[in-house]
Amino acid sequence: MRAVQFSRFGAPDEVAEVVDLPAPPPPGPGQAAVAMLAAPINPADLLNLRGQYGIVPTLPAIGGLEGVGVVTAVGSGVDNIRVGDRVLLGGGTWREHHVLAASGLFALPAGIADEQLAMLTVNPLTARALVHEAQLQPGQWVLKNAANSGVGRAFFTLAKKAGARGIAVVRRPGLEDTLKSWGAEVVLVDGPDLAERVKAVVGDGSLRFAVDAIGGAATGRLGSSVSPGGVVVNYGLLSGEACQLSGVDLVFRGVTLRGFWLVEWFRNTPREGVAKAFGELLGLLATGELTTPIEATYPLDRIGEALRHAEKQQRGGKVLVVAKP
Amino acid sequence: MRAVQFSRFGAPDEVAEVVDLPAPPPPGPGQAAVAMLAAPINPADLLNLRGQYGIVPTLPAIGGLEGVGVVTAVGSGVDNIRVGDRVLLGGGTWREHHVLAASGLFALPAGIADEQLAMLTVNPLTARALVHEAQLQPGQWVLKNAANSGVGRAFFTLAKKAGARGIAVVRRPGLEDTLKSWGAEVVLVDGPDLAERVKAVVGDGSLRFAVDAIGGAATGRLGSSVSPGGVVVNYGLLSGEACQLSGVDLVFRGVTLRGFWLVEWFRNTPREGVAKAFGELLGLLATGELTTPIEATYPLDRIGEALRHAEKQQRGGKVLVVAKP
Repeated sequence: MRAVQFSRFGAPDEVAEVVDLPAPPPPGPGQAAVAMLAAPINPADLLNLRGQYGIVPTLPAIGGLEGVGVVTAVGSGVDNIRVGDRVLLGGGTWREHHVLAASGLFALPAGIADEQLAMLTVNPLTARALVHEAQLQPGQWVLKNAANSGVGRAFFTLAKKAGARGIAVVRRPGLEDTLKSWGAEVVLVDGPDLAERVKAVVGDGSLRFAVDAIGGAATGRLGSSVSPGGVVVNYGLLSGEACQLSGVDLVFRGVTLRGFWLVEWFRNTPREGVAKAFGELLGLLATGELTTPIEATYPLDRIGEALRHAEKQQRGGKVLVVAKP
Repeated sequence: MRAVQFSRFGAPDEVAEVVDLPAPPPPGPGQAAVAMLAAPINPADLLNLRGQYGIVPTLPAIGGLEGVGVVTAVGSGVDNIRVGDRVLLGGGTWREHHVLAASGLFALPAGIADEQLAMLTVNPLTARALVHEAQLQPGQWVLKNAANSGVGRAFFTLAKKAGARGIAVVRRPGLEDTLKSWGAEVVLVDGPDLAERVKAVVGDGSLRFAVDAIGGAATGRLGSSVSPGGVVVNYGLLSGEACQLSGVDLVFRGVTLRGFWLVEWFRNTPREGVAKAFGELLGLLATGELTTPIEATYPLDRIGEALRHAEKQQRGGKVLVVAKP
């Protein structure tokens, strides 16, 4: 079977290679065989290939942190899933075939495109966890930069559902209609005077929570934008620069900077909480309220091209790989 | 009476001027007249004269955020203090005479030098609040940079009393004996490889709390030094640069960055808590366990010289002004 493997860390398109691995054995008791259908290339995947992700894999490793597959066979004693069910995949998804413990799988509902299911975990679940963590009150403002992203796509929809008013901060003009269609109320282009413009929007209201995916001075601009006592949460390392926060905002305005990592969220969230979160997101996918834009889909063996595409700025959506083009 | 006044914000020694103001009237009911004895020049005072402190004063303003004075007269109905008592001063201390509400004053114990009492609030109380906030467990490590400072002086003494093991990070060599005499167990000179050296010290132990007074990349080095889930607290803006924290430390290691401001601590601490804190610190002053080094003392009318001295790096202690040289 084909798989995308890397034996050293470096530029993603240089270290990723398509290899032919032995197909896995048939599923044993309690196991399921799953054929990969689709898997996205997320920023976390690019970090992973560079050796900069939070969990550094043992080399050689298979790329891909999430995806969706279809069950092709089950071992004895498996009754929670059946052949033909689609299931979520995690950890080394960029391979054609998987054999997995069935206990960790659940059947996904019909009527949702493979690609949307493939992108369910890393971005929308992060967005949902962030919106929950914000404990938004109806009418309260909430802000996110790199708003035109996979997480942004879900974030504004979920924040609006929670009754909050979203401020979408983007790095280039021309995205206002898109972001508003996702649920943002106000769209601002990032810049040195961001905090002043945010304050003009918020007025006497309250902006307690801002989400940063960029780092560097962009983080600091969110720190100056939130209300006194507010929180800036970074979950993304898009600029590669250390997050900044001014001493004035930290000390005199009581602003806090912390991080969010989905892996840690899984560790700290009880099984029912995880199921509830997935259930909510699947509901939004089913109604079409949460459709993540797709820029391009590549077959697994064109991974180099796919990775170069995924690294481009100014995409209009996610890049995915599929097992069968 | 002489007072140090500033009518614009700028370089401290350029904007501070000695003026002759009318002496305040005799104390009315519930008031006390207090003659200033001594007041330090803290970094917060320098920020205040630059218009960069958390509370920007209405101009013209009198400098000095803390100090000590002696009661020279009391109005009717005052029974908590008597003529001859020494009391703490706050807010516009760089003037010869004050008339204050007696209810906010308390008599300081005898046997402690004026200068030590004058420096009690801004630095040692910050150190105590930080040590409390750290919720140190016996044997746990705790770290502070700019360790050779007024706050550092008290911090390591208090941390050691709490059973913690202090790592003092300094910006120049030659301070090891001093810092160890204050209670630090290990003294490290700051540098790019600080986190590795801290980790070598801490080993299998835990460093959950690090205190930053510098900002810029120095903050980031503390973020990389603390254990996963650790906290970096900034209370000082010595470098004038925004605090940095790497995305890796924020997201993958769960490190939090927040600020500490004594003004906010006063707002949030009940009266008994404040009294307890002062009581503890006065006890340490009385036994000589907490003597803050003094570099120089200037009369009030040589304030320009005093401010220039206070702005020098590599001082050996605080610079104070006194009403009577």
